[in-house]
Amino acid sequence: MAERHRVVIIGGGFGGLHAARQLRHADVDVTLIDKRNFHLFQPLLYQVATGALSPANIAAPLRAVFRNQPNVRVLLAEVTGFDVQERTVHFENGHLPYDTLIVAAGSDNAYFGHDEWRSLAPGLKTVEDATEIRRRILLAFEKAELETDPEEVKALMTFVVAGGGPTGVELSGALEEIANHSLRHNFRTIHPRDTRVILADAADRVLPPFPPELSEAAERSLKRLGVQVENGTMVVDVQPGYVVLKRNGTEERVPTHTVLWAAGVRACKLASALAAATGAQTDKHGRIVVEPDLTLAGHPEIFVIGDMAHAVNPKTGQPLPGVAQVAIQEGRYTAKTIRARLKGKTLPPFKYRNLGNLATIGRASAVADFGRIKIAGFTAWVLWLFVHLMHLVQFQNRVLVFFQWAWCYLTWNRAARLITGHDGIAKEAEEPVASSK
Amino acid sequence: MAERHRVVIIGGGFGGLHAARQLRHADVDVTLIDKRNFHLFQPLLYQVATGALSPANIAAPLRAVFRNQPNVRVLLAEVTGFDVQERTVHFENGHLPYDTLIVAAGSDNAYFGHDEWRSLAPGLKTVEDATEIRRRILLAFEKAELETDPEEVKALMTFVVAGGGPTGVELSGALEEIANHSLRHNFRTIHPRDTRVILADAADRVLPPFPPELSEAAERSLKRLGVQVENGTMVVDVQPGYVVLKRNGTEERVPTHTVLWAAGVRACKLASALAAATGAQTDKHGRIVVEPDLTLAGHPEIFVIGDMAHAVNPKTGQPLPGVAQVAIQEGRYTAKTIRARLKGKTLPPFKYRNLGNLATIGRASAVADFGRIKIAGFTAWVLWLFVHLMHLVQFQNRVLVFFQWAWCYLTWNRAARLITGHDGIAKEAEEPVASSK
Repeated sequence: MAERHRVVIIGGGFGGLHAARQLRHADVDVTLIDKRNFHLFQPLLYQVATGALSPANIAAPLRAVFRNQPNVRVLLAEVTGFDVQERTVHFENGHLPYDTLIVAAGSDNAYFGHDEWRSLAPGLKTVEDATEIRRRILLAFEKAELETDPEEVKALMTFVVAGGGPTGVELSGALEEIANHSLRHNFRTIHPRDTRVILADAADRVLPPFPPELSEAAERSLKRLGVQVENGTMVVDVQPGYVVLKRNGTEERVPTHTVLWAAGVRACKLASALAAATGAQTDKHGRIVVEPDLTLAGHPEIFVIGDMAHAVNPKTGQPLPGVAQVAIQEGRYTAKTIRARLKGKTLPPFKYRNLGNLATIGRASAVADFGRIKIAGFTAWVLWLFVHLMHLVQFQNRVLVFFQWAWCYLTWNRAARLITGHDGIAKEAEEPVASSK
Repeated sequence: MAERHRVVIIGGGFGGLHAARQLRHADVDVTLIDKRNFHLFQPLLYQVATGALSPANIAAPLRAVFRNQPNVRVLLAEVTGFDVQERTVHFENGHLPYDTLIVAAGSDNAYFGHDEWRSLAPGLKTVEDATEIRRRILLAFEKAELETDPEEVKALMTFVVAGGGPTGVELSGALEEIANHSLRHNFRTIHPRDTRVILADAADRVLPPFPPELSEAAERSLKRLGVQVENGTMVVDVQPGYVVLKRNGTEERVPTHTVLWAAGVRACKLASALAAATGAQTDKHGRIVVEPDLTLAGHPEIFVIGDMAHAVNPKTGQPLPGVAQVAIQEGRYTAKTIRARLKGKTLPPFKYRNLGNLATIGRASAVADFGRIKIAGFTAWVLWLFVHLMHLVQFQNRVLVFFQWAWCYLTWNRAARLITGHDGIAKEAEEPVASSK
């Protein structure tokens, strides 16, 4: 019996997951390597960070996902490098040969050369990021309740969100909802309504990939919630106890203890290892420039997809955005290409079909862009709910998330308001959020 | 206006929570201090540790619980000491005066003078303990799947649970269910059914507080699940890579990487601070010996309740057990005493009413002891489900837990199987579970 074609997929995000699923009936052996044991539904991670959902509600154990797909083997390992001549992938304690390699390891937060901001202004990429952000938000209110200095109370109740993309918009909207509703009657000294949420956005409008009229609708919704939207504003410094915002050449120092980073992403660090091993080009975000069929120049056996890839949209000449939809379609295309090749065929280049863009702003408000059709408000929000529920990988999670959303909608209560990760209260010495006091 | 009577409650567990609730209509100002921002339903913590539930499902934010009880103020702080002359409680950055003090700070795991075992054999007291145990259980299977040495695979798939009380019985039962059902078809190299779960119990039978016939029923259920029940067996050493079990004077070295500790508890360390401040007696478990009205001798204004208290059952002459039921009744009695005193009355001594004991062994099996009536099996299990659901503090959590239990029962799937807490895979240097490799 001839040995089967070996496909190694690095990363169990949207791209890797859909590639592996699409290979279900292919005559190949698939190994899916991830450093986490679950697929994470990142579009809802901000709801974990704001206490509405639990991490498990938006995660699907990879082994459970592929339980009934015998040609997929899941490996929990962190890939450290590549030997593209030998066609092997290296990880700690081992290596793995491949015939076809799909690299879909995703992205990381980018701090524009200020990696020292990372601990002060966490981004939202992992489950641990989300529970850490949740901890900081809730601890800020707890510390404010105990604080006697009114200036310090004000700083503790000031939240700065850097970045006006979907994540920044969602986070700042949710923060205002927490302050105005979820924490109502919860405190005896402070008034959570005094909370100030600043959304600092370097662009001239929020949600820049959307058409201007939807950006305006989103901004109106944010303002109605109480968010202070600062367009054309850069975060130029993050320090314990304050941030510096710059707008039209003027700098402003804003006292705050909670800064959330949604201002930029770059390809994960595995991208540079792959570029070094293959000689592939990378763009300014560290993404690997791929051919129209998503392979590397000179390496038709290596595909790079999802947030790691710089794939050009032939229609616009622009790189495709780092969103789930792109990764899913790239994953499926890659799997189809592999199946075609096994039959001696080739497929036409990858073509992205934009099915529409959605972003939610808060309770009962969202924007939806389907090209000709543009919707803002309640209808867009219902659509957003539906699309996100349907994309959750496990049926159980769909029901759990739906129930919790309904509950949250009816009662304003966010039940997953746990301060965890450290046994008890933040230790002053360890915690940037507290070290400035 | 005269100042109101000030009640300070330390600890938002069963005792403190029910004391505060019972003071709802009392003319007092209540301050509830806890180092965590949530009440934890500890009887279900093992279900978080075994991936069936999420932490938020069994936790209720204390501020949400007392949202509509204006005479309760919640403080997130860790109490560090007492000044019983000045009647103040001290915590970092502050202190608080009281007229009546209720100390209900709970218990901690006891390692019988072997605190060095703590990191190798975690107990199950906090949310972080539960997610750490979950991480170790799941990582053991992951490492076994990658391992080539058959002896090492065997060690990785051996789980030792120390202690045959309710927690040890529940954990070992759940481990067998994971191995035999939840992880079915999840691996390609190992067979989770080869898992060996050893329940090492120093007593001559499991569940010693139950009547012997129920202990026997529980042991039969455990064995049917596949648990190797070792009565009269002590864990005498815990080392990276193995434990030493001692039975009838003979020692056996069992290679394992996952040891779970359910063998003993002691009062939390605040008990010794309180004993030092008041001159109160403590028992061998560090619990504070209280008067028949749950106050300290010479300090009628200080109540100690729950797992921290050594309250004698006048019927048996034995101390009351450290279970939720005792803490709840003590909390209510304490609140009633305070209300009676405000009216110049006194109450008769505290009398514990045992409403029955329940312990579950696994799917569809439990034991229930109501004195004359003893039940084992499915009926006891349904009762167990019902009682535990009804005691969850928030209605939302009741629905979520019920749904997840139903789902788990129908599909055997445990959805909350996330390895979290460390970004990615265990770092060899930091992790006892891995350091022996």
